[in-house]
Amino acid sequence: MGGHNSFVSKRGKKHVKDLLKQTTSQGAGISTISLTPNVKMVLYVIGLGLGDEKDVTIRGLEAIKSSDKVFLECYTSILSVDKNKLEEYYGKEIVIADRDFVECQAEDIYLPAKEGNVALLVVGDPVCATTHTDIMLRAFELDIDVELIHNASVMGAAGSCGLQLYTCGQTISIPFFEDNWRPTSFYSKIQYNRGGGMHTLCLLDIKVKEPDFEAMKRNKIVFLPPRYMSVNTAAEQLIEAEEIEEGGAYSPTETLCVGMARLGQKDQCIIAGTLEELKEQDFGEPLHCMMICGEVHDLELEFLKKFMVEGSKFKANDHVLQGAAAAAAAKAAKVPEDDNEE
Amino acid sequence: MGGHNSFVSKRGKKHVKDLLKQTTSQGAGISTISLTPNVKMVLYVIGLGLGDEKDVTIRGLEAIKSSDKVFLECYTSILSVDKNKLEEYYGKEIVIADRDFVECQAEDIYLPAKEGNVALLVVGDPVCATTHTDIMLRAFELDIDVELIHNASVMGAAGSCGLQLYTCGQTISIPFFEDNWRPTSFYSKIQYNRGGGMHTLCLLDIKVKEPDFEAMKRNKIVFLPPRYMSVNTAAEQLIEAEEIEEGGAYSPTETLCVGMARLGQKDQCIIAGTLEELKEQDFGEPLHCMMICGEVHDLELEFLKKFMVEGSKFKANDHVLQGAAAAAAAKAAKVPEDDNEE
Repeated sequence: MGGHNSFVSKRGKKHVKDLLKQTTSQGAGISTISLTPNVKMVLYVIGLGLGDEKDVTIRGLEAIKSSDKVFLECYTSILSVDKNKLEEYYGKEIVIADRDFVECQAEDIYLPAKEGNVALLVVGDPVCATTHTDIMLRAFELDIDVELIHNASVMGAAGSCGLQLYTCGQTISIPFFEDNWRPTSFYSKIQYNRGGGMHTLCLLDIKVKEPDFEAMKRNKIVFLPPRYMSVNTAAEQLIEAEEIEEGGAYSPTETLCVGMARLGQKDQCIIAGTLEELKEQDFGEPLHCMMICGEVHDLELEFLKKFMVEGSKFKANDHVLQGAAAAAAAKAAKVPEDDNEE
Repeated sequence: MGGHNSFVSKRGKKHVKDLLKQTTSQGAGISTISLTPNVKMVLYVIGLGLGDEKDVTIRGLEAIKSSDKVFLECYTSILSVDKNKLEEYYGKEIVIADRDFVECQAEDIYLPAKEGNVALLVVGDPVCATTHTDIMLRAFELDIDVELIHNASVMGAAGSCGLQLYTCGQTISIPFFEDNWRPTSFYSKIQYNRGGGMHTLCLLDIKVKEPDFEAMKRNKIVFLPPRYMSVNTAAEQLIEAEEIEEGGAYSPTETLCVGMARLGQKDQCIIAGTLEELKEQDFGEPLHCMMICGEVHDLELEFLKKFMVEGSKFKANDHVLQGAAAAAAAKAAKVPEDDNEE
């Protein structure tokens, strides 16, 4: 094993030796590579955490400083600061890797790691999204050493509201409903989670760099402004999903839910209440996420009270009342799997 | 709202003003408190991440540097370095807060935050354990401002093996079986998770500062050396639990599981295979944890192959074969709640 928390291929070490050999035999060919002991030729995948430029770890910052190229993946989450602020603080030029870039030019990220250090910065923790898994797998195939540098993720920070993370079931993603596309595949997952007394973390849709089809008809490539789903929209869609499915997975007027915005940032906002209540609250700027409670313990409830909508009409532990358990049981053998997150 | 990611009570600001007033009216009484704009009088609860002294975030390090007292909670997890190394790197004296301390003297941690900054360091992320929730609640009652500084936790880093964290159900804790105490309350949770196609993260027991009852009989207070459950022991106990319960929640010879050790550290070790296979592997030093797979997708399996026991006899997606789904359905309405993690 090589670096910290690394996935070093068996041929990794040999590769360095080969390059050293090349230096001797080919000379100028690789003269731009400084093969000092500090150069490891690693693809660092570095979590930036959730807040701003200071939420990187010391280890992460050292890796960024040692990198020849730095990319920032920025379509699965956002920080509270922009690229310039990061560049200034890290002292490195940063190339934005949007969805197009990551999906169509991934090799531009991992191939340079055969000749020097490359840092791929990811908001939150690197292992929380399949995109990065994919890049890592492709790097492994080419014997590129990959080193993960972990950080906080929304899946951890969601515990700030007082709900125990141990009790969370599968995480769901709620996509923006469109006129003719109102998918409710998340519904049965909430139902199954609540049937087992589990909370459900809901990640809300992000639409970044979506093509403007109207403009495309005029042969112009135009992108729509980014859209981030609010807790309000999520609450409305969840209420609609219950109206469509009628499975009693949760009650819009009784089930306790927690809306959260900008978790891990200076002005994070947490409000607890029913879906009907949360629909009306102001959570401010993105990103938002949400928890739908399952079985709530006393300590959890005590903590949640701090964030409760005044006079909330919620009923604690209504997952039993709602018959979600029974409904979940009926569906236990066939949970759909069609909306895995990116 | 005050500091970064803080829970500032409404009376928080007023409290500072009161103290300032006291400075004027009482003089020497609080002369040791330097009320410069930098002093916020905050209880920082700071995640240290999983590796060593360099896994703290910049924000976390700044908070430690600004604290008058620094405590290290050290009974729910461990780093790869000891207290001295942390003290040297952070430039602060650190007081170890073991289980006794946190449970019996918690006020020694949060009360000083009424007069200056206090840092409570926690391995991993601060919101992943109920103990810290409890201290925070007590601090709130006294109008003490609490600021969480997030970091990586085992619940996130467990994704390093390639299994999607979104697909994880409730997390279980596996306690050391004793001669006359072999609790299997985790069993029905695994069953329910797998019934819904979910993976199960298993946290393994830690026994730190357990009293030596033999010595106590001789009126001596002696503590046993710390014990950390290995993947091997966990695998054995899981096999025994299936023999006891006979619910077909998983198969010792077919269900794919992943043993992980020292996640986020230099020499982390990940091995995938069946329980019977993992029982025989050498994972090295603590901490260990484990994943029991539910429904495994192609990308997950491709990643896991990197860690697979040679010639593993696992059967992918055996959660359907095992009849776990049907069994879970029968139990859907009554999931026990008796082993919440500390």
